[in-house]
Amino acid sequence: MDNKIYLDNASTTMMSAEVVNAMMPVFNDVYGNPSSTHEEGRRASKLLDDARDSIAETLNVSSSEIYFTSGGTEANNWAIIGLAYANASKGKHIITTKIEHHSVLDACAFLETQGFEVTYLNVDKFGFINFAEFLGAFRKDTILVSIMSANNELGTVQNLKAIGITCRENDVIFHTDAVQLYGNMTIDPNEMYIDALTISAHKIYGPKGVGALYLRRGIKINNIIYGGMQESGKRGGTESVMNIVGFAKACEVAYRDIVANNYKINQLESYLIEKLKEIPDCEINALTKQKVPQIVSVSFDAVDKDTLLMMLDLNGVYCSAGSACMAGSSKPSHVLQAINMPISVINSTIRISLSKNNTFEEIDLAVNIIRDCVEKIRAYSPFYTTRKNAKRKKNV
Amino acid sequence: MDNKIYLDNASTTMMSAEVVNAMMPVFNDVYGNPSSTHEEGRRASKLLDDARDSIAETLNVSSSEIYFTSGGTEANNWAIIGLAYANASKGKHIITTKIEHHSVLDACAFLETQGFEVTYLNVDKFGFINFAEFLGAFRKDTILVSIMSANNELGTVQNLKAIGITCRENDVIFHTDAVQLYGNMTIDPNEMYIDALTISAHKIYGPKGVGALYLRRGIKINNIIYGGMQESGKRGGTESVMNIVGFAKACEVAYRDIVANNYKINQLESYLIEKLKEIPDCEINALTKQKVPQIVSVSFDAVDKDTLLMMLDLNGVYCSAGSACMAGSSKPSHVLQAINMPISVINSTIRISLSKNNTFEEIDLAVNIIRDCVEKIRAYSPFYTTRKNAKRKKNV
Repeated sequence: MDNKIYLDNASTTMMSAEVVNAMMPVFNDVYGNPSSTHEEGRRASKLLDDARDSIAETLNVSSSEIYFTSGGTEANNWAIIGLAYANASKGKHIITTKIEHHSVLDACAFLETQGFEVTYLNVDKFGFINFAEFLGAFRKDTILVSIMSANNELGTVQNLKAIGITCRENDVIFHTDAVQLYGNMTIDPNEMYIDALTISAHKIYGPKGVGALYLRRGIKINNIIYGGMQESGKRGGTESVMNIVGFAKACEVAYRDIVANNYKINQLESYLIEKLKEIPDCEINALTKQKVPQIVSVSFDAVDKDTLLMMLDLNGVYCSAGSACMAGSSKPSHVLQAINMPISVINSTIRISLSKNNTFEEIDLAVNIIRDCVEKIRAYSPFYTTRKNAKRKKNV
Repeated sequence: MDNKIYLDNASTTMMSAEVVNAMMPVFNDVYGNPSSTHEEGRRASKLLDDARDSIAETLNVSSSEIYFTSGGTEANNWAIIGLAYANASKGKHIITTKIEHHSVLDACAFLETQGFEVTYLNVDKFGFINFAEFLGAFRKDTILVSIMSANNELGTVQNLKAIGITCRENDVIFHTDAVQLYGNMTIDPNEMYIDALTISAHKIYGPKGVGALYLRRGIKINNIIYGGMQESGKRGGTESVMNIVGFAKACEVAYRDIVANNYKINQLESYLIEKLKEIPDCEINALTKQKVPQIVSVSFDAVDKDTLLMMLDLNGVYCSAGSACMAGSSKPSHVLQAINMPISVINSTIRISLSKNNTFEEIDLAVNIIRDCVEKIRAYSPFYTTRKNAKRKKNV
């Protein structure tokens, strides 16, 4: 074991050996354009077909309902903007939540500049939507609901089937961003009445730069990337064949090992939480059974998250403050704000995210390092000392 | 040498060994999300910075003016749609040509549904725009001109600098799709007054699924893919680090070897044309000095292109009828229609596109196979026999 402990797997994962091995022959040998009709093209095209079949199988859907994209962000944008435009004749109202990934929220914000109206649902302290509020949000002109499967900062898993049934009953399209759930827990679009679903390769030990949108047959969508007959004419651009092959392998492996990996990561999660709780004045956020096990949100009283992350980084422990996509931003997490966390606590909160490759030894080591860093930071914190003394007096 | 002769390099190229070698370490070792602030993230981010620098250098522009995309198609869509929306307050008129790639034409068609007006310029038999028509197309509300650098079916290179100067004088943004020119001939956005320029990796021996848009500093553009702080907030989505590293290497190599490769492909082109002309009733289209050497369009009287391509394919010679992106379509080429080629000739036209890896021996072999196939097809063609006899009688 080297000194690095990577606990930022919700940002991205390391490609697995099986994925690398699947991609290698394409890397070295398959170079045709899958749209070309000659043999070199057909060799590439066959790989795309096989990949589409593999991914469709994991979702228990038809291959013709899987469309490749450049990643989860593009798939989310496509779903929100493409579905909104294609169905605008029916209405221009969309329902989503305050805790979606920015690729959903920013696409909604764009639509608001184009005459669409968006309702952003509140969530409780665990990150769950309120079902009464959800039901009350439906209007005659509602055309689309987009609610993420598992939140990327808390891990909270919504009740997708109940949401799906409600949407179907209201004849409203249901899209879910399943990037953090897919491959970690099973999800069945038909059983859950999901019409559109976003997945991404690099969150499940696959390559960066490829994702897919599942779109139920019959659902109308507009392009956001035009030109070319690729993806049934719905998404132009020469397909990234090698990445798609790696993506399919990552999906296959994830589903083959889903029970074992879920069990292992659950054990790691429990152990991590148990160890973290030994650190004084530490709070595990959104502790619910209805979550993906790989994401743990934790707050340390009087500890600045950026200082902590930097110190952890120097000690070879890699965590994050939340979505990597927003790491360049100085704004407080919109997800933690939505669960009503005070700004001071948000500034003391980090995300620890696990993978199938992490070990109990790593958790031990990492938590020891976290404890040391937290103690060092607190030693310099007048607030923490004051509060501790106040508590002591109270307890005397 | 194996039996395959790949002459479809305008569709896509084989990755070069140097590109593969540059990507391999990323493939096996760099897995961080470039947006993550920890060391694994910074390692990935450093690779992006270096890649951006390399590509900027080939264009003689600033690194901050290079934005990565999932390919040429996305970059073209982004340029057309993003520039149109961002500058719509100034006007809603766009000028382009009838021979653009479908990623430009279809994005323009979308804008026409959104209240924009588009002028599609005619071209002459070589594929050149008429400058008087171009000048006459400018209106007070013209905001954007998009004219491709080198056409993907004919190879014709427009007079970019004259177009650029005209746009700058009229205070109109000039975008050029340089996918077929970049890496084969030098292009300097500053010298040529180009404001936005599209490039793609897989046309220059790089990986599929990555491209870039050069955007001159100060030019306003809207997103088409929202969410995340990537690419200065202009294009959301975790970057395909490995592909970007390969892309940058492909650009570096292309520019390092540009003179030698251009010379070699020019020689191959001349030799190919000379040999093709030995086949009776064969016409080389758009023969002009102002073209990229790798693309040769050729028509064979009374030969059905699909039959010819299929026979060539069976004999290990891979050519195409034009854009691979449209290979799934049965429509005749819009480019060949624009140069006023009769439908019967379009149906007899194929594109042969060369790479730096092709050899004179391959040209010899390929043209021999082409000649054989053409003769076989013509032997079954009543039209060809009739025409030939008519010609003979005339010559007597």
